[in-house]
Amino acid sequence: MPLYKAPLRDMRFVMFELMQGDEIAALPGYEEFTRDLIDPVLEEAAKICEEVLFPLNRSGDEEGCTLENGVVRTPKGFKQAYDLFREGGWTSLACDPAYGGQGAPSVVNTFVSEMICAANLSFGMYPGLSHGFYKALHAHGNEALKAEYLPKIVDGTWSGTMCLTEPHCGTDLGLLKTSATPQDDGSYSITGTKIFISAGEHDLTENIIHLVLARLPGAPKGTAGISLFLVPKFLPTEDGRPGQRNGAAVGSIEHKMGIKASSTCVMNFDGAKGWLVGEANKGMRAMFTMMNEARLGVGMQGLGIAEVAYQNAVAYARDRLQGRALSGAKQPEKPADPIVVHPDVRRMLLTARAYTQGCRALAGWAAQAIDVSKHHPDPVKRVEADDFVALVTPIVKALMTDLGFEVANIGVQVYGGHGFIREHGQEQYVRDCRIAQLYEGTNGIQALDLVGRKMGAHAGRYLRTFFHPVSDFIQTKMEDEALGEFVQPLAKAFVRLQQATAEVARRGLARPDEAGAAATEYLRLFGLVALAYLWARSAEISLPKVGTDQDPDGFYRAKVATARFYMERLLPQTSGLFAAIMAGGKSIMAFEEADF
Amino acid sequence: MPLYKAPLRDMRFVMFELMQGDEIAALPGYEEFTRDLIDPVLEEAAKICEEVLFPLNRSGDEEGCTLENGVVRTPKGFKQAYDLFREGGWTSLACDPAYGGQGAPSVVNTFVSEMICAANLSFGMYPGLSHGFYKALHAHGNEALKAEYLPKIVDGTWSGTMCLTEPHCGTDLGLLKTSATPQDDGSYSITGTKIFISAGEHDLTENIIHLVLARLPGAPKGTAGISLFLVPKFLPTEDGRPGQRNGAAVGSIEHKMGIKASSTCVMNFDGAKGWLVGEANKGMRAMFTMMNEARLGVGMQGLGIAEVAYQNAVAYARDRLQGRALSGAKQPEKPADPIVVHPDVRRMLLTARAYTQGCRALAGWAAQAIDVSKHHPDPVKRVEADDFVALVTPIVKALMTDLGFEVANIGVQVYGGHGFIREHGQEQYVRDCRIAQLYEGTNGIQALDLVGRKMGAHAGRYLRTFFHPVSDFIQTKMEDEALGEFVQPLAKAFVRLQQATAEVARRGLARPDEAGAAATEYLRLFGLVALAYLWARSAEISLPKVGTDQDPDGFYRAKVATARFYMERLLPQTSGLFAAIMAGGKSIMAFEEADF
Repeated sequence: MPLYKAPLRDMRFVMFELMQGDEIAALPGYEEFTRDLIDPVLEEAAKICEEVLFPLNRSGDEEGCTLENGVVRTPKGFKQAYDLFREGGWTSLACDPAYGGQGAPSVVNTFVSEMICAANLSFGMYPGLSHGFYKALHAHGNEALKAEYLPKIVDGTWSGTMCLTEPHCGTDLGLLKTSATPQDDGSYSITGTKIFISAGEHDLTENIIHLVLARLPGAPKGTAGISLFLVPKFLPTEDGRPGQRNGAAVGSIEHKMGIKASSTCVMNFDGAKGWLVGEANKGMRAMFTMMNEARLGVGMQGLGIAEVAYQNAVAYARDRLQGRALSGAKQPEKPADPIVVHPDVRRMLLTARAYTQGCRALAGWAAQAIDVSKHHPDPVKRVEADDFVALVTPIVKALMTDLGFEVANIGVQVYGGHGFIREHGQEQYVRDCRIAQLYEGTNGIQALDLVGRKMGAHAGRYLRTFFHPVSDFIQTKMEDEALGEFVQPLAKAFVRLQQATAEVARRGLARPDEAGAAATEYLRLFGLVALAYLWARSAEISLPKVGTDQDPDGFYRAKVATARFYMERLLPQTSGLFAAIMAGGKSIMAFEEADF
Repeated sequence: MPLYKAPLRDMRFVMFELMQGDEIAALPGYEEFTRDLIDPVLEEAAKICEEVLFPLNRSGDEEGCTLENGVVRTPKGFKQAYDLFREGGWTSLACDPAYGGQGAPSVVNTFVSEMICAANLSFGMYPGLSHGFYKALHAHGNEALKAEYLPKIVDGTWSGTMCLTEPHCGTDLGLLKTSATPQDDGSYSITGTKIFISAGEHDLTENIIHLVLARLPGAPKGTAGISLFLVPKFLPTEDGRPGQRNGAAVGSIEHKMGIKASSTCVMNFDGAKGWLVGEANKGMRAMFTMMNEARLGVGMQGLGIAEVAYQNAVAYARDRLQGRALSGAKQPEKPADPIVVHPDVRRMLLTARAYTQGCRALAGWAAQAIDVSKHHPDPVKRVEADDFVALVTPIVKALMTDLGFEVANIGVQVYGGHGFIREHGQEQYVRDCRIAQLYEGTNGIQALDLVGRKMGAHAGRYLRTFFHPVSDFIQTKMEDEALGEFVQPLAKAFVRLQQATAEVARRGLARPDEAGAAATEYLRLFGLVALAYLWARSAEISLPKVGTDQDPDGFYRAKVATARFYMERLLPQTSGLFAAIMAGGKSIMAFEEADF
């Protein structure tokens, strides 16, 4: 049977040792969120994830969602789990207290998200999308709309969706056709078809409120002519109950590779009544302001899956007896040794571990920056943190979902043939995780965002928020003998990143295709260097504690050993990435299209 | 709708230009197999694969196999397709004419296999396993058994299976428990449970014959006490019809990630009547003699999936309009450019192409060596070819399935969110392909085979069959200016491989764990260098033809351009692999087991 235990110890390490998370409570608005509050919040989250959401993960995958007569049914147990989730206050955790939220910092919400994704990614889609709706409406809605809808969204009685994609446009939203026609009462009539609408229809909440991108009559072509509308499934009555049925209905649900318990809907809007959110023709801007956090959220999906796949791989590797250690039998009294003795199995487990914990550190860093960017009293600090979030967002999204997929596949590989069998649960993680590399902007789009928008922004101002601390760390620690084995490989890889950055920037100015051709490898190079920096810092913190009474369970010992493995066995990939980047894009762009 | 067109042009390039396949017809026993015969055989194979097997691939995945009252039903259309397949002579293609086979060379059979795997991997499992049975019985059975069973297996009226794995043992067959008790009539009574038995039960043939590994009473422990038995589902009557039901029955079928139309059975043998194949206690040896070809066959599964995923990705990239080329609109009359204009999409397609065609060349090389090893009149040539097959087998199996999986995932990624939707067919390739990295020895086991058994065998004799031709090629072509861009990167990567080989061999002698810890990266390094050699040779052949009337459709132009991409953008991975190998296994083996 699959298992999941929330990695609270490591989350605390990231928040309170690596990131000095006590600084969070020093931010205005977060005063309550001291460690004394955060710890029990994480523990409660762990409990509902382990005990309520996780047991529904496999059955949800087997059963999937069904559509009958316009009604989408979620798998058995989902409604009860959602009720517990809602009653536990988890839909309101990171929401504005003005609308009934608990106002938790992003860093807390991020780790709660990781647990939800690890326990049941499909389930997490429902509150996840609803939170996206919350953020967009909170940032861009007028007071009337916010007062009418946000409290119900925050307390989870209602849920929200984001309706962007249409059949002929996903990445290129400028092509969208859904129309909005002004009505005499100040509302709009919305008509069009949206696809890939997660949680577009389901049976968990009494009402579903859609945010829909559409075009006003005579709107400019392309993305400059897109507006955002709020379209409820049931029009609310004056006393706030779901009233008359609106012209927004599910047309069909998709049959997918994974996240089968998450309903992915084709939504038909047929003269549905809606209200403008924000300014006319500024819909894309409204989307963009919330996209960073949505992308970080998808990154957490990769991380959550990686964690649970790793845990199960470790358990299997300890349990499965097969062959003998190459250096001689380790458990001669048993018919064979557990496969964890085999070097190649250990290599797989350590790879999974190093990526997973490294990504957790990166996620913590990004989430803390979000909090600082919003709440720090010093505007300079706010801008700096905001710059860092902008820079690191595509890396978090693409790196963490790519590595999450890699770790999920390691999870299968450790199981051997049994990994391919559904009942063991490992193959589901591969299927579920696969979507995270595709949606919220494919990982190729993230890479283009990094090299095209983020790298050159404000003459490299975003870049400096990463390059400066890493450079400072290297300079300060270079002579530290005990840290040498961590700092030296970091320094070497960092030079590669600096040179690649200069080269890609230089070439991209003359030929944008050159930046595009380098983008994916550049993002990976950047991400691996970021993890190296975080592993080196983790080693710095952990080294003095190894072998002391501060390390009764070997947590710090394992940190140092994993950091070492990362530096020796994974970071060297940066040399090949560097060479591929420096080779340039000619071989890619010169290839004749007809020759593919 | 998914598409598949057999890549006959590239297969001919590999067989008749890269490998000088005319030499095959010069081998005794293969005189018939001149290009005049091989071409139409491949064309006929393409036809049945494209027109009969491929249209059942998606429906087979959706429907899967069902078990009811001990009967396994294959998906709709499979039986009719199998009848056509059998009547077309495809089960007998590579079989001994003495038993009704057509005696085709391995190189022909290999490319036919690729097409079958590309068109319908699940379907291919049935004749594939049967061919494994054929080979084992042909090599090890006595004349009576061969005369009784082989003609029916060869003509496809009956099918065969290989029953090795048990619940507690897969890799470690020494642990198996199934028992064989001698009977007065010279037969044996077989009792035990086998799992993961592909084609163990189905409705395609009138009888199913199992080859079962089991222990005789008092047999030595471990692999030295395993014997091989033939156990029919129906005991044949004297006139060769299926007679009395034997005690071999399907217990359940597995629910799997992919290859859902292939029945994967738990087989219960309950006092089933069987006959010894080969010598008592020599069952493992019988298995090993056929394992090379089975592993090459699994490699072809990776290749077949890669090809079909690539083809569909290309078609989608040409068709899907999204965004504008970074260098300015390419099709300004359309609402957007096709995504094939985007550098990152081209990078993905070229990666898929370079791996796929490179693997096809490697497969052709290995298959031709099999033919030479069996049919060459010069025993020195036979041994040399056999050495090469032994060396390259784990590489073909692991590299081609790992890269096949990577390409299948590229196939999904090019589709964006649509890749996750089942109806487009791309996600099925990811699921189907995943098994190939696991069965017939996980890819980690292949890597151990390479470093543990093959590398040091006969003082490096196997290695020389690869190192010498590559080294000769580099020395001969080093000064060739036109080839420099291909030969120089090959030479650099080859030096890495030579140094890594020496280092792994040296360390492995003292500490076997060190070889184990390097194995996976070493196999990948080896495989990438092998592809580099084949790409350099492909470029050498193609360069003089580019721009001449020998290249009306740009085939050679594309070869050269793909070779260039491979050298510039993919081969650099070898530097990171080299560094990881040279770092050694200490960080892997020193990690405390309790700390995972």
